[in-house]
Amino acid sequence: MTERNIRVEPIDRQAVEDQEVEIVERKGIGHPDSICDGIAESVAGALAREYLDRVGEVLHFNTDETQLVAGEAVPAFGGGEVVDPIYLLIVGRATKHYDGQVIPTERIALTAAREYLEETIPQLEVGEDIVVDVRLGEGSGDLQDVFGEDEVSVPMANDTSFGVGHAPLTETERIVSEAERRLNGEFVDENPYLGPDVKIMGKREGDEIDVTVAAAMIDEYIPTMDAYRDAVESVREFVEAVASEHTDRDVTVYVNTADDYDEGSIYLTVTGTSAEQGDDGSVGRGNRANGLITPNRSMSMEATSGKNPVNHIGKIYNLLSTEIGKSVVDEVDDIRDLRVRLLSQIGRPIDQPHVADVHVVTDDGVTIEDVEADVEAIVDRELADVTEITRRVIDGELSTF
Amino acid sequence: MTERNIRVEPIDRQAVEDQEVEIVERKGIGHPDSICDGIAESVAGALAREYLDRVGEVLHFNTDETQLVAGEAVPAFGGGEVVDPIYLLIVGRATKHYDGQVIPTERIALTAAREYLEETIPQLEVGEDIVVDVRLGEGSGDLQDVFGEDEVSVPMANDTSFGVGHAPLTETERIVSEAERRLNGEFVDENPYLGPDVKIMGKREGDEIDVTVAAAMIDEYIPTMDAYRDAVESVREFVEAVASEHTDRDVTVYVNTADDYDEGSIYLTVTGTSAEQGDDGSVGRGNRANGLITPNRSMSMEATSGKNPVNHIGKIYNLLSTEIGKSVVDEVDDIRDLRVRLLSQIGRPIDQPHVADVHVVTDDGVTIEDVEADVEAIVDRELADVTEITRRVIDGELSTF
Amino acid sequence: MTERNIRVEPIDRQAVEDQEVEIVERKGIGHPDSICDGIAESVAGALAREYLDRVGEVLHFNTDETQLVAGEAVPAFGGGEVVDPIYLLIVGRATKHYDGQVIPTERIALTAAREYLEETIPQLEVGEDIVVDVRLGEGSGDLQDVFGEDEVSVPMANDTSFGVGHAPLTETERIVSEAERRLNGEFVDENPYLGPDVKIMGKREGDEIDVTVAAAMIDEYIPTMDAYRDAVESVREFVEAVASEHTDRDVTVYVNTADDYDEGSIYLTVTGTSAEQGDDGSVGRGNRANGLITPNRSMSMEATSGKNPVNHIGKIYNLLSTEIGKSVVDEVDDIRDLRVRLLSQIGRPIDQPHVADVHVVTDDGVTIEDVEADVEAIVDRELADVTEITRRVIDGELSTF
Amino acid sequence: MTERNIRVEPIDRQAVEDQEVEIVERKGIGHPDSICDGIAESVAGALAREYLDRVGEVLHFNTDETQLVAGEAVPAFGGGEVVDPIYLLIVGRATKHYDGQVIPTERIALTAAREYLEETIPQLEVGEDIVVDVRLGEGSGDLQDVFGEDEVSVPMANDTSFGVGHAPLTETERIVSEAERRLNGEFVDENPYLGPDVKIMGKREGDEIDVTVAAAMIDEYIPTMDAYRDAVESVREFVEAVASEHTDRDVTVYVNTADDYDEGSIYLTVTGTSAEQGDDGSVGRGNRANGLITPNRSMSMEATSGKNPVNHIGKIYNLLSTEIGKSVVDEVDDIRDLRVRLLSQIGRPIDQPHVADVHVVTDDGVTIEDVEADVEAIVDRELADVTEITRRVIDGELSTF
Repeated sequence: MTERNIRVEPIDRQAVEDQEVEIVERKGIGHPDSICDGIAESVAGALAREYLDRVGEVLHFNTDETQLVAGEAVPAFGGGEVVDPIYLLIVGRATKHYDGQVIPTERIALTAAREYLEETIPQLEVGEDIVVDVRLGEGSGDLQDVFGEDEVSVPMANDTSFGVGHAPLTETERIVSEAERRLNGEFVDENPYLGPDVKIMGKREGDEIDVTVAAAMIDEYIPTMDAYRDAVESVREFVEAVASEHTDRDVTVYVNTADDYDEGSIYLTVTGTSAEQGDDGSVGRGNRANGLITPNRSMSMEATSGKNPVNHIGKIYNLLSTEIGKSVVDEVDDIRDLRVRLLSQIGRPIDQPHVADVHVVTDDGVTIEDVEADVEAIVDRELADVTEITRRVIDGELSTF
Repeated sequence: MTERNIRVEPIDRQAVEDQEVEIVERKGIGHPDSICDGIAESVAGALAREYLDRVGEVLHFNTDETQLVAGEAVPAFGGGEVVDPIYLLIVGRATKHYDGQVIPTERIALTAAREYLEETIPQLEVGEDIVVDVRLGEGSGDLQDVFGEDEVSVPMANDTSFGVGHAPLTETERIVSEAERRLNGEFVDENPYLGPDVKIMGKREGDEIDVTVAAAMIDEYIPTMDAYRDAVESVREFVEAVASEHTDRDVTVYVNTADDYDEGSIYLTVTGTSAEQGDDGSVGRGNRANGLITPNRSMSMEATSGKNPVNHIGKIYNLLSTEIGKSVVDEVDDIRDLRVRLLSQIGRPIDQPHVADVHVVTDDGVTIEDVEADVEAIVDRELADVTEITRRVIDGELSTF
Repeated sequence: MTERNIRVEPIDRQAVEDQEVEIVERKGIGHPDSICDGIAESVAGALAREYLDRVGEVLHFNTDETQLVAGEAVPAFGGGEVVDPIYLLIVGRATKHYDGQVIPTERIALTAAREYLEETIPQLEVGEDIVVDVRLGEGSGDLQDVFGEDEVSVPMANDTSFGVGHAPLTETERIVSEAERRLNGEFVDENPYLGPDVKIMGKREGDEIDVTVAAAMIDEYIPTMDAYRDAVESVREFVEAVASEHTDRDVTVYVNTADDYDEGSIYLTVTGTSAEQGDDGSVGRGNRANGLITPNRSMSMEATSGKNPVNHIGKIYNLLSTEIGKSVVDEVDDIRDLRVRLLSQIGRPIDQPHVADVHVVTDDGVTIEDVEADVEAIVDRELADVTEITRRVIDGELSTF
Repeated sequence: MTERNIRVEPIDRQAVEDQEVEIVERKGIGHPDSICDGIAESVAGALAREYLDRVGEVLHFNTDETQLVAGEAVPAFGGGEVVDPIYLLIVGRATKHYDGQVIPTERIALTAAREYLEETIPQLEVGEDIVVDVRLGEGSGDLQDVFGEDEVSVPMANDTSFGVGHAPLTETERIVSEAERRLNGEFVDENPYLGPDVKIMGKREGDEIDVTVAAAMIDEYIPTMDAYRDAVESVREFVEAVASEHTDRDVTVYVNTADDYDEGSIYLTVTGTSAEQGDDGSVGRGNRANGLITPNRSMSMEATSGKNPVNHIGKIYNLLSTEIGKSVVDEVDDIRDLRVRLLSQIGRPIDQPHVADVHVVTDDGVTIEDVEADVEAIVDRELADVTEITRRVIDGELSTF
């Protein structure tokens, strides 16, 4: 054990890749829960940057609650309309008065939310298809741990909390993760009919992988039922191709399985998100900090999005442990599965966790002892650099959901 | 008396122009109450036009309630900011389901409000400086009196209500009315520092007219206290010039009399409306249908803005009586003061009021009998053409506040 | 003219009692607009009393805006239910921080609203049939004119505003006023089926008075259509009896004229107010400070309810002029009609108005000169005692609507 | 494998009881997240019972979103006050129109929330300390799987989802769970100063258990700092006693460790919940279906509270797997740790899961084969009786958080 209480030990289970049954899910960026995560996090980033800009350090805030109340829409081939707008309430605390200045926290929040929505769900007309409201309480007047422009000190943990990260991703995890990101990336660039509300579930039993995609199609670009069928098929083929890049196992892709063409019941939307019709959302209910929901792995309940990146230990440790995991498998060979857990202790600097335990499954023929030193060194290095996580979150470089 | 029950009689008081004391007020288009009036009316117009467009006739609605909750702002020479946004809640009823169609009434309302705000108070960033929310109940399913594309029938009065109009405007009334409109027109075109929240009070005692102007200046265009003083002086001179076009009486103009330069307490705003800081507003609390508040004249309490123009008898009769007044003094000479009152009777066509009484003060040497026939003919003609009021309201040609 | 600028002059019109046509209206305490007036005023009173209690003087506040969004109800003989609750938003400003204390202004407002509703509309279950929300901005930190526990100084007028009062009430006015009050008093005590939302319109043409009553019946106490008919008839007879106490003219009373028994379309409610189904409301849209809407008389547009009674000159002068009117006709004989107008001047103590003009119509054979001195003395006395108005408002002794 | 696809297998890890580090958390019933869970679930139960009552079957609804926006309070020894009320928004969908009936879903929700709050957090004055608002969209008109009064059919799974349950609880889990329940039970009955917002974290390293309690004290019952210290000490002793009933390991109990007596910074509240001051909350962010947060065990992200108990497969399977776990360890000896996972398959009856895998750690000297048949029989029996879960949820017999 080092001074940072780093323990590297064998994990007391098989690698997830080798387990018999595996389930993985990802809610795409346009899913109602992800919309809330995304807004909470973009509000947090905007507040942190504004605080730095105005007073030179990040003041107290916490915007990890956003509630989305679904609207009502009437989609139609060629273009329908939202009839009752979505209502979205941004909730949290933020310091509004500091050293004689008034910080326009509500306005910052509204502006960040609008920009995020316009970027992420362009089909949604902010202020018409969605009403965005805000209720930010006044944060406590206490000064916060210093994360200023010029100097960065390592803050003390203000809570007993823990973060957990995993690496490498399994094939199923990579398929689910990549499929959503590339559908909402290159695929959409070519095929504007696909909305951002793409939900993907991967299920592996032995060597059979089923990928189930629920993809909200945008009616404006879908003139007919045939066009819809074609769109569904294109998504299926695309996901199939993505999957084949990540596995040699048998993969079957299903898209919009709940459709009933005879009944005309299909997944057609006006705006590309199910929030327009009946699906509410809120922060912390969807993807974990690594972008996935992975019942086979231990997960933190912590809502990472919207938390203050300077001193919220749950947020920092979830992101840091995920980054540590990535670094380890990038730099150390022969690791088949790895779980990093960071447990804080109130009142201790956050670069010195109560425990940093790293559980490892090595490849056949390799022992823990073979990798232990390398792993420990990486964990030590990343912990020493913990404030870099804060910086990257503030600059929007790290995804939280 | 004609079949329309038109009575032309002498008024039992002096012409307002000849009374000893006269008070007149106008809340400019950027005043919080006027903002609510304007949004209520623009929502009503948008709904009426959409109904005509979609189903060929105007369905039941009533959007004569809008509540504005003031924000908080920190103005500063050269440009301050809104720190807590204004909250505006559009309230009313509207028919959402008709003949298998869903009418997106909330979305129509939000779009109309946004367009109105962007047009009227351009300094206000909708969705950031102001949150616009909407709560429209479902209107009753009953079919309404027909005001369709092809045919127009005269509806029955659904209430006992009354409207009142006056003409001609007195000098003081014209000064107050014109000063606000021209400040918010030609003056602002040249001088962008003047905000739309201009409140003007005129007080005449005998032949002395005092005009008191409260004018919200926009900080972005006011770099210094000197610039502010200049702005105030320019407004004063402009209003003085306007006044001189309407009267030979002595006029004194006061602008922003509550300012205290020594204390730095001046009427500086970020957005040009006091709604940004502490002044709430709602519909029907400000100007009457003729754009003025005139305690010397009888006024209707009815909130004209936002009411359904097809069948809301209070709205129609207030607008119609005002129009009748204008027509009479346009077409008939020697009328010094005129009050038109239209009283409806439930169940009777609205072109046949229970009573249409016109009280007249004629110029010296002229008797009622000299003008009676002409007046009656005009009233008769305008009543016959009552649905024209509805059309003009729907087309946005008639101001309601 | 005295030092208080009191002028007593003949009015330049007939007494309203002698005019050919007269219209009078009163919205009962359960009407949606009156509910808002009542809550705004009870919130104001509660704040004023709490301020006195906690800091010894009345701090800045203004709660003259309340918006009611109607609910949806399904009444039924014997008892129906509210299906979508009424939403009521209390709006205003109030000082929350003073001298190290935090004043729980929102909580005070909610408590006052709840108590008012439970008292006034007992059938309405607060928190279930109606959701009461509150948005009070922070009032300015400036100290206010002193209205403290120990000493009372006369504040300066902070605005140019005016108030108007009339006396005596005409027969029609008294009938309308009394009928509503007694229906909501002794009648309801005996007949619980009558809801507080009673709207009464009186119309007099010459010596014919029509009284039209819209009375919301409470379904719980109305088991059958026959019971409903009986209830309507009882109301009619009661109002007829009230009317006969105030006039010898011919009076015809109509109750719930819009009913259509064949269609089953009657004025049946669950809670006794039309706010439960489709009728929105807000402050200042209904009765004037004397409890009536009187198009035949000059009226102030000012919303009296909810305003700060210490320094809001519009509120004080409307109430004071009404009280002056009453005192004059109580104490001076031979006055047939009287209008009191008080016009403030910014910066002058409010007991010294810019003008206090009293216009009088005397009985036949009596001249202005006969009553002038008496009237002037009363006006002078009441003005001197202006802070008594504030005290009575704070103690809830004066009705504002 | 049986027809229900039940698999009983060894778990690929140690029993949690035997792992080196274990973390367990429970948010007490007064924690802001738990308040939201509790209201969501009580609204769901109330809706289900009302539907059964009114139309004989449970219609579509989903009320698994509730957002709590914290208030502001000023606690003080002997009794402080809430100064800005908590705002709570109930969100979801529910069928409002069915077979000609209107179901008052909003009113049902508000009533359920009020009753729940009054029962759970009696110090909180509903409507004054907390504003409860509701936005329920209209559920789809589709008929739902039958769960009626007379007959109960087994519904089809409408989603691919999974539930997970564990048994038996470890010592640490039992301590955390029991301590909260008994503090909020017998302890509070004797010691009214303890608020319901009790958050307990248990951490075991080897044989050392630390129990950290954050306990909101109610100021009304705490007259002095000494009384506060005594209260803290009483809680500590009580939890210590509870712990000793469940373990022979070393237990150290910490209560309100963030207190700083010198600074006067203690955990004193007016209402017994941190929601009164700065702590927001929402559904599904706290305890899992078994009442605990257990990072050492696999957890479902599913928000169980508020979901429809008839057909929401995630809710049903989480509760059912928890119940199966309990039954197995109750009835079968020699089981040291057990994990039940139920995975649904769309379109298959929910009593026939895609997979029901039960992973077992047996006591030393006992093999899977020794217990397999018994375990399988119990799983089979409980799956056959799946609708009993629905019934118990509707009757409020099963806790979901």
